[in-house]
Order: sequence, then structure tokens, then C-alpha cells
Amino acid sequence: MRFGVLGTGMVGQTLATGFTELGHDVMMGSRTADNREAEAWRRRAGSSARIGTFRDAAAFGEVLVNCTQGAVSPDVFRSIEPTNLVDKVLIDVANPLDLSDGKPPRLTICNTDSLGERLQRELPMMKVVKALNTCNCRVMVDPQRVKGDHDVFVCGNDDAAKATVKGLLHDFGWKTVVDLGDITAARATEQLMPIWLRLYGLYGSADFNFKIVRS
Amino acid sequence: MRFGVLGTGMVGQTLATGFTELGHDVMMGSRTADNREAEAWRRRAGSSARIGTFRDAAAFGEVLVNCTQGAVSPDVFRSIEPTNLVDKVLIDVANPLDLSDGKPPRLTICNTDSLGERLQRELPMMKVVKALNTCNCRVMVDPQRVKGDHDVFVCGNDDAAKATVKGLLHDFGWKTVVDLGDITAARATEQLMPIWLRLYGLYGSADFNFKIVRS
Repeated sequence: MRFGVLGTGMVGQTLATGFTELGHDVMMGSRTADNREAEAWRRRAGSSARIGTFRDAAAFGEVLVNCTQGAVSPDVFRSIEPTNLVDKVLIDVANPLDLSDGKPPRLTICNTDSLGERLQRELPMMKVVKALNTCNCRVMVDPQRVKGDHDVFVCGNDDAAKATVKGLLHDFGWKTVVDLGDITAARATEQLMPIWLRLYGLYGSADFNFKIVRS
Repeated sequence: MRFGVLGTGMVGQTLATGFTELGHDVMMGSRTADNREAEAWRRRAGSSARIGTFRDAAAFGEVLVNCTQGAVSPDVFRSIEPTNLVDKVLIDVANPLDLSDGKPPRLTICNTDSLGERLQRELPMMKVVKALNTCNCRVMVDPQRVKGDHDVFVCGNDDAAKATVKGLLHDFGWKTVVDLGDITAARATEQLMPIWLRLYGLYGSADFNFKIVRS
């Protein structure tokens, strides 16, 4: 499958590499075609790795992955012609964190709305699936980094798109995928950020994850 | 120990009964001394159970437990003379949910503040410990209802108060108590409500809980 990964940060690089390691073709998109981080990633990732603008990556991918900073994600998609987005699956792994105010960061959207919902509203031609935004990026592509059974959450309005994402998650090694329903559940998973960040500070390591324990 | 449980709803009744079953003396407080739910609880709970006004319960308890609806909790404490609150531990199990707008309920405070922090700000003479607000009340007093290991979170500014609460949690049968630090972590645990409510809808049962899985 062809993936367009939007964003060149650690999350984008780790997921883009993860997709190439699963045998997929990946284009990493950024604001400019000559982004230095993207170029360094391409050299490391090998022949199935390409780089380009956000628009190039959107045009290339059958599945797009939002790894931009959540606070600017809507602007990124507004910069892409809608013809490059029609009917595509968008895996939204971003969280709407505002890091400008010091710690702990606040969420720029929460409670009665979420980044996932906003992207789905502003991109009605796409099938947004919120997923993987509740763990560190190295755990995203290698859940065995955290010992024992633990969960990844997905939500979205399109069942076929969620099935595609669930398949990818299984390919990464995820055993338990909790389908929370439609995209409004994005407000539930994005609001896990505050406790995730607190636990990260407590443990000094990002190798942990949530598990829902049931009777 | 003497407990003042504020609130007569299912959470207040379940916790109040739980404390009596641990051998403690409990007064359940409500807006009026002749509250019908409180009276029914007192008859069921036996000789170590008392009822009274919020103020009576606050005066009686060495440890107070906030089981009022989160949206009205600050008003409840404003109605109690501060002399009844000085130096007491307040276990805040409430969540600031506004159920008036239909489902899903929104949080009346979140993101950059929390009910726990607000209570601690408005009640500087008390030692607020946020705890038990992330699971169903029957799980609070009987964690074995959910099979396997799972977690309860505490936070607060006073270590001695947290030690008292941790001891109570162990008495209820909790094995893993995660101390998230000071009371600002209340915003992290209160923001678990949206996913808790979503999972409750998904499972059709409240017998589940969060577990943090670490490497």
C-alpha cells in the first residue's frame, strides 16, 4: 500500500519507517520539498522511501497519516487541494497539545470537541480514523516494547476505513484493538494525554501503555 | 476512624457502607438532616451509621469524602463553616460532569484546571486527596470485582494525607496505587471520564478499570 505521512518529527519518522518495514511505499510530506529532517529520514529508510511537500505526500498516499503537531494540523490540510484527499483514509495520530505555555501543556481542543472530529468536519471527503495517539511512537510500531497485553484505541465514522487501520495495527503487532465507535470518541482518547504526560514524568520512560481490564 | 461522607447518591451510599464494613464510624451528610436516601441508608447500614446535614457530617468526620455531584461540590463546601474543616483530609472522588446537555456529558472544569484543584484552592485549611474517581463505585470498595491487576490513582499536596488514603485503599483491597504527585494531577484523572463513559457504553457494564502496563 502507498502511505503519505504528513510531518517530519519523531512520530512521523518512526511511523514512516514502520510502514516501510512492513513492506509499504511511503512518502513523507512537509511544508517544503527540501526539508532537512525528511531528507535525512529518506536516506536512512531506503528505496521505498520518498519525500515531498504535504501536497505531494497526500497525492501519493492511498492512506494518509497525520503526524503534524495537532495545533497546526487543520492548517496543514487546508493547504492541500481537496482533489488529493478524496475518499482517502486519514489516520490521525496527533494530539492537540499547546506546548507554548510551559508544562503541563494544555489541549487546544477538548471536552466538547476534538482534533479528530474537527479534521473529519473540515475534510468530509476523507475517512478519518483516530488511532495510536495514546502511546509513544516507538510503542505504536512495536507494541512488544511494553511487556504484557495492552490496548490501542480506534474510532471513526467509516467501518471499512477502521478495518484497514485495524489490519495495519495487527501488522505492527497489536493484539487488542478497542473500537470506541464514531469519531466523537476522539475527545476521549485525546483527553488521555494529560495522564499520559503525567505518567511519563513519573516513570521517566515512555515505554508504558493503557490497558482496560474487564471482568 | 470517623468518616463524614458528603452526598447521598449511589457513590456516597456505596462508599459509606464500605467504610462501615471496614469497621469505621460514618456519618452521611446531605443538604437537609431528614434526607430520605440517607435515612434508608442508615437503616440498612447498622449501628455505626449516622446521618445529618453536610455540616454535621463535616464536624463528625476526621476524614471527609466528597461524593456530591462535581458541578455543585464547591457550593456544598461553601455552605460548611470552615471551623468544621480545618486540617481534615478530604478524599475527593467526584467528577465535574454536566449531565444537563445530554450525552456525552461534558466536564464543567478541565484541561487547565480541575475540581480537585479548585477544592484545594477554596479549602486551603483541608488536605485534598483526589482518588477513586476513575472507576465505578462498586469497584472502588471491591476492586476484586474486576479480575486481574488494575490501578487506582491518587494525587494531592500533602504526603501524610495521601498515606492515610493509600492505607484505606489497601484496606478496600487495592493492590496497585499510582501516586501521580500533587493535586494538579486531578486534571489528568478527571479527564479519564470521557473514555470511561465511552467504554461503559461499549461494554454495557461498569466492571472494568484502567491498568498502566509498564516494561
